[in-house]
Amino acid sequence: MMLIEQAIREMAARTRTASQDLATLPTAAKNKMLATVAALLESEKDLIQAENSKDIAAGKERGLSAAMLDRLQLSDAVIAGMVTGLSEVISLPDPVGRISDMTRRPSGISVGRMRIPLGVVAMIYESRPNVTIDAAALCLKAGNGVILRGGSEAIHSNIILANLLQRALQENGINGDAVQVVDTTDRQAIQFLLQQEESIDLIIPRGGEGLIRFVTENSRIPVLKHYKGVCHIYIDRDADLDKATPIIMNSKTQRPGVCNALEGLLVHRDVAGQYLPQLADEFSRAGVSVVGCPETVALLAGAEPAAEDDWGTEWLQLKLCVKVVGSTEEAKAYIARYGSKHTETIVTENYSAAQDFLASVDASAVMVNASTRFNDGGQLGLGTEIGISTTKLHSYGPMGLEELTTRKFIVYGNGQVRE
Amino acid sequence: MMLIEQAIREMAARTRTASQDLATLPTAAKNKMLATVAALLESEKDLIQAENSKDIAAGKERGLSAAMLDRLQLSDAVIAGMVTGLSEVISLPDPVGRISDMTRRPSGISVGRMRIPLGVVAMIYESRPNVTIDAAALCLKAGNGVILRGGSEAIHSNIILANLLQRALQENGINGDAVQVVDTTDRQAIQFLLQQEESIDLIIPRGGEGLIRFVTENSRIPVLKHYKGVCHIYIDRDADLDKATPIIMNSKTQRPGVCNALEGLLVHRDVAGQYLPQLADEFSRAGVSVVGCPETVALLAGAEPAAEDDWGTEWLQLKLCVKVVGSTEEAKAYIARYGSKHTETIVTENYSAAQDFLASVDASAVMVNASTRFNDGGQLGLGTEIGISTTKLHSYGPMGLEELTTRKFIVYGNGQVRE
Repeated sequence: MMLIEQAIREMAARTRTASQDLATLPTAAKNKMLATVAALLESEKDLIQAENSKDIAAGKERGLSAAMLDRLQLSDAVIAGMVTGLSEVISLPDPVGRISDMTRRPSGISVGRMRIPLGVVAMIYESRPNVTIDAAALCLKAGNGVILRGGSEAIHSNIILANLLQRALQENGINGDAVQVVDTTDRQAIQFLLQQEESIDLIIPRGGEGLIRFVTENSRIPVLKHYKGVCHIYIDRDADLDKATPIIMNSKTQRPGVCNALEGLLVHRDVAGQYLPQLADEFSRAGVSVVGCPETVALLAGAEPAAEDDWGTEWLQLKLCVKVVGSTEEAKAYIARYGSKHTETIVTENYSAAQDFLASVDASAVMVNASTRFNDGGQLGLGTEIGISTTKLHSYGPMGLEELTTRKFIVYGNGQVRE
Repeated sequence: MMLIEQAIREMAARTRTASQDLATLPTAAKNKMLATVAALLESEKDLIQAENSKDIAAGKERGLSAAMLDRLQLSDAVIAGMVTGLSEVISLPDPVGRISDMTRRPSGISVGRMRIPLGVVAMIYESRPNVTIDAAALCLKAGNGVILRGGSEAIHSNIILANLLQRALQENGINGDAVQVVDTTDRQAIQFLLQQEESIDLIIPRGGEGLIRFVTENSRIPVLKHYKGVCHIYIDRDADLDKATPIIMNSKTQRPGVCNALEGLLVHRDVAGQYLPQLADEFSRAGVSVVGCPETVALLAGAEPAAEDDWGTEWLQLKLCVKVVGSTEEAKAYIARYGSKHTETIVTENYSAAQDFLASVDASAVMVNASTRFNDGGQLGLGTEIGISTTKLHSYGPMGLEELTTRKFIVYGNGQVRE
């Protein structure tokens, strides 16, 4: 046990040291290094897939589901996806060094704020080994050292990918310690990682609610996380129902297994009588099952009565809750109670209802007349994202490159002292 | 024990509920409420001072030092200071509702970011009861609920001030639960506060290093903190020594007991021979004692040899470390090792040295040719501050009103769905 603890502490300290050089590396040098990673992914594809096949074989032996095995696989297409991801990160503007809010103060000093890397970011994630490249690329581009702790079922894949990242750093004259992978599957390693507050600035867990709760409760280091996405659409009395239907169906059915998919629909009583029967046909055609309030059950063919536990459920499948409400206030109160601060949409043509909903609903993204599926770093204009935060400190919503940096104050003086 | 735990949980939940109304309160309503607080401080001065005298009496009985008793006292001048502080907060622009970065995306949606309150902030602080008003005013102006846990020695003062805050809220038709004071001196109350992650969004500890470490290690809620201020000035080879002296003396002597005071001076070898003897006179006149490296001891009359423990010490008195260095790189390495990421200044006329120092030194404020004492919310242009963060998540440096808010994404659509 002492050996793992010491190994983790030393690894984190080496990453901290390496991150200091990375912090001031010119953008061109970072981009060149990321291009080397992409080239290595292509030239070493056979090696990557050979290591990956060890994980697949071990996974089969352990009886992983077909879906789990599929997520584990570094197929040609997945590797090509990582290469594309790298070129997207290369093309993103570098936030480091950007100076904003420069003003002259009454004392005569000029004060501004300069974007700088956070330092060292630790990612703790499950399953998909392509996260190793995606997350490392974003962290490195933002000038951060990165420590990766993937799922134990992907250990061979993660180690070979980390080796390629380190080779790319070294081939470009950068300290390879800037990227580290925790190469033990011992769960204690996570516990020790969470204690390295001297060397690690941020922990980002990605995975099931159990992992995220464990990390939050045990970390001395700030954690950016989202637990789950329980997203709602509220169909206002003044909704354009021709807009409502595609928004609902896109939000629910385009990719039901993701966190920005629709899980609960609220419909104003004034339009429920007309609209819910129409929706019944749409849901039926798309294979969407419904649990709802008594009014919904009466109006929407095929809807089953909702149990109390159903409200606020993250279904992640072709199923949702539907509730009839009497006002925007009631919809907002429902969202405050059952939502997860992820994505909330109002469908309305009413100016005041739209503005009120935007201003007062507490969620990382609040939308008018748009699919919940737009809550995504790429769609919102951040480029690639490293996750979606549903806590409010530092970042709320998708986290892109800028969210992997912070700002320090800079002062240009000319001999000024404080009076 | 169960009673305290339950009381804390219920109090935090009530604050959460009250904070929801506060989040969308118009600026004018918040300012009017703060003006009521100021009026009550003046009209209820006798009551405040009567309660305060109970704390003073108890403090004398417990043998508090004269300095501690002085910090505890709500004299006429301290109350007038709180009133002035309130009018400053009233005059600050309200960050809530500010929309930035509004852009049209290729999908046709318009995406922006709207500033919103954090929700509920808990302040855990020691001694000075005027913090109760100062901190509450900033939190309320930013639309946050606030839970205050002051030092046990100020309990009567804090309770009466909290009562006045609640009266001001109620007189303005706002739920008084938005401000709460923990009215027990039981230390367990802090432990329970740190577990209310459902109701509290941010913990700000202000006080000694022991308090801050306890809070960091036990909190499940994000913490904004600074441990200490070990600030340096580096006198470069190309420094204008006529600027250097007032900057050093102001940084060290203007208010030696505060976190942005100078604690360590680094002098380039090329100027040390000329400059350190001059400084000896300045330090001697001001009663500043020096511990230093062997070269310093040889050049600066009165300097004693520094022990290894002296480097990196936060003196908080008229004393400092002085070290002769051979290059900017050596100065930067020293700062990286012994600094506390608070404030670092270079004195130089050399363009490249200044720019390199600004870009590469990791501290919440990095300065050229200016006193370290400028690292202060008022001096840097934030208005009043609630503390200075030396950790990088969310806020790095002085925290003003804006740092008590966060941003959510807002989306204006017109029926868009994701392809």
